[in-house]
Amino acid sequence: MSINVLLLAGGVGGAKAAQGLALTASEQDCHYNVRVIGNIADDEEFHGLWVSPDIDTLMYTLSGEINTQQGWGMKNDGNTVLSQLQALGEDTWMFLGDRDFATHIYRTQRRRQGIRPSQICRELCTAFGCPLPIILPSDDCIQTRLSTDQGELSFQQYFVRERCTPVVNAIEFHGAQQATPTPEALQAINDADIIIFAPSNPLVSIGAILATPGLRDAIAKSRAVRLAISPFIGGRTVKGPADRMLLAQGLDTSPLSIASLYDGLIDALVIDESDAGWLSAIEQRGLRALAAQTLMITDSDKRRLMDECLAFVEQMEVSP
Amino acid sequence: MSINVLLLAGGVGGAKAAQGLALTASEQDCHYNVRVIGNIADDEEFHGLWVSPDIDTLMYTLSGEINTQQGWGMKNDGNTVLSQLQALGEDTWMFLGDRDFATHIYRTQRRRQGIRPSQICRELCTAFGCPLPIILPSDDCIQTRLSTDQGELSFQQYFVRERCTPVVNAIEFHGAQQATPTPEALQAINDADIIIFAPSNPLVSIGAILATPGLRDAIAKSRAVRLAISPFIGGRTVKGPADRMLLAQGLDTSPLSIASLYDGLIDALVIDESDAGWLSAIEQRGLRALAAQTLMITDSDKRRLMDECLAFVEQMEVSP
Repeated sequence: MSINVLLLAGGVGGAKAAQGLALTASEQDCHYNVRVIGNIADDEEFHGLWVSPDIDTLMYTLSGEINTQQGWGMKNDGNTVLSQLQALGEDTWMFLGDRDFATHIYRTQRRRQGIRPSQICRELCTAFGCPLPIILPSDDCIQTRLSTDQGELSFQQYFVRERCTPVVNAIEFHGAQQATPTPEALQAINDADIIIFAPSNPLVSIGAILATPGLRDAIAKSRAVRLAISPFIGGRTVKGPADRMLLAQGLDTSPLSIASLYDGLIDALVIDESDAGWLSAIEQRGLRALAAQTLMITDSDKRRLMDECLAFVEQMEVSP
Repeated sequence: MSINVLLLAGGVGGAKAAQGLALTASEQDCHYNVRVIGNIADDEEFHGLWVSPDIDTLMYTLSGEINTQQGWGMKNDGNTVLSQLQALGEDTWMFLGDRDFATHIYRTQRRRQGIRPSQICRELCTAFGCPLPIILPSDDCIQTRLSTDQGELSFQQYFVRERCTPVVNAIEFHGAQQATPTPEALQAINDADIIIFAPSNPLVSIGAILATPGLRDAIAKSRAVRLAISPFIGGRTVKGPADRMLLAQGLDTSPLSIASLYDGLIDALVIDESDAGWLSAIEQRGLRALAAQTLMITDSDKRRLMDECLAFVEQMEVSP
C-alpha cells in the first residue's frame, strides 16, 4: 500500500525538505508517493521575463542543478547575459545566471503562448529530470506585497534588493482573492495521507500557499496527518527573514508561534532539539510534538529529518 | 556645408558599407552627415524573443561589437543560454549568443511595453555607442516569406536552418501593404543629398526596404544623387544567396540585373573592377557607371570603396 505524502514548500528550506523526501522516495521498496506544492507568490517579471524563484529553487535542488553554495540558482552558471543587460542600462540587482535565463525565457515564451503555468512547470520538471512532481497552488498570478517602512515592496525587492532590511508592517497577497486553486493542488491535498509543512517562512511562503482560495480549507478538512517543521532554531531562522518578519508583526519566534500560525491546520509540530524545552507547551495546545535536529546541511541531514518526520507520523494515533 | 548621405543597407554587406561611411564620417573636418536605413524583414521571434538580425549586424558592426570572423553576432560571445534552451527541448538552429541574447531580451521587453521599435533601436544604438543613426523603414511588422520547392519559409528558416538550399520561387513581404513608413525614414530620404544602395541583396534586403509603402516612391522622387553598389563580382555574391535567388527568378547576375531591379531609383551604378566590361552597357541605360574594387575585407577596403562612391557622386553632373 502506498502512502501519499504532500509537502508544502517555500524556497531554500522547502527545497531541502523536498530533497530529503526525494532521497527516501528513491529507495526501491519505498511506499511513499511524494508530491510538493510550491510557492508562486514571490514570482516577478525581470527584463520582461517571468521569474519564479521558489519553484526554480525546488526544481534545481531536486534535479541536482542547484548551486549548493548559494542554495539558489544553477550550478556552473555565468553572468554574461546579466552583465550585458546592465550595459544596456537595465537594473540588474536580481541575480539571474546564464543557464538560469534559459528557464525564464522558456517559461515566458510558453506563458505567452497561453500554456497553463502548471503545465509549463511540468515541462520544465520533465526536462530537468526532477524526481518529484512540483505542483503550483494556482495558475493565476498571486504576488506578495509588503508594506514596509520604506514603502510597498515586492518580495524580491525586499529580499534581494533591500537585503531584508526594511521593517515589514503588513503582508498582502495581491491577486489571491481572485485566484483559483489548481485541480492538481486540490487533488494532492485530497489524496494526501500525510501533509508536511516544510520549515519555510510561515508568513510569506507557506502563508501564500494557504492564501490561495480553497487550499487552507482543504488542508483544514483533510483526513491526512498534518505535521509542520518549525523554521526556528533558538528563536532564529537558518536563512531568510521569517524571524524578523514575525517580530515586526508582534509575534515571537518560539515554536509556539508556529503552532498559532498553523492553528487548525496541523496535528503535530517538529521542533529543533535545542528548543526541546517547548515540547510540553506545544502538547498542551493539543499537538503532538517531536524534537529533532532540524538544521539540514548535508543530504543525510535532509533525509534523516524527513525520515524522522515520517516515522513520527506513522506511529501517531491522531485524535481529530 | 554638410552633405546628407543616406545608406540603404541589409546585413553583412550593408554593415561593411556603413562602417566605411562611419570611418569617413569620423574624420574631424568631415562634411558628411550619414544615416542608415536598415532591413527589418528578416526579423523573427525565437524562444519568444524578437530577433532583428540585419539591424543587429549593423549595430554590432558600427559599434565594434561584431564577431568579425562570422560577420554577424557579437564578439567574445558564448552559447550557454542556447545550449540550455536546447536541453529544455527548444529548437536551436538559429544561433544566438549569450551577450546577443541580452539585446533580444531588452528589445522584446521594450516592445511589450509598447515602445516604438524605432525608439528601441535608438536606445540600443546609444547603449552600444553606435556612431551612425540606424533608421527602421517601418515600426510595423514586415516579414519576408519565401515560396520555395520545400514549402513556405521565413528568411531565417531559408538562410540559417536550410542554408539557402531550397529554390526560391517567389518572395513576399508579409505585412508590407498595411505597414506605415517611419517619419525618420521619410525624413532621411527627404534630407538626403546622396542615397547609396549598399551591395546587399536587392531582392530581400533592399527589396524589403523598397516594399515599405512610401519609401520607393520617396526615393524615386528624391532630388538626391542615387547610387547603387552591385553585390555581384563576376556574377556571384561575396556572401548570401542573392545570386541563386536572382537566377531562380529567371534573372541573370550581371550588373545589368541590378540596373533593371533599381530602374527609376538610381542615377549611378558602381560595379566591381572585374566586371568593367559591363560599364558601357550600363551607361547605355542612362546610368553613370564606375568600376571599383567592391570586395570589402579590411576596414581600409570599406573606407576606400565608400570614399570612391562619394567622390564619384560629387564629380557627377546628374541629368534628371
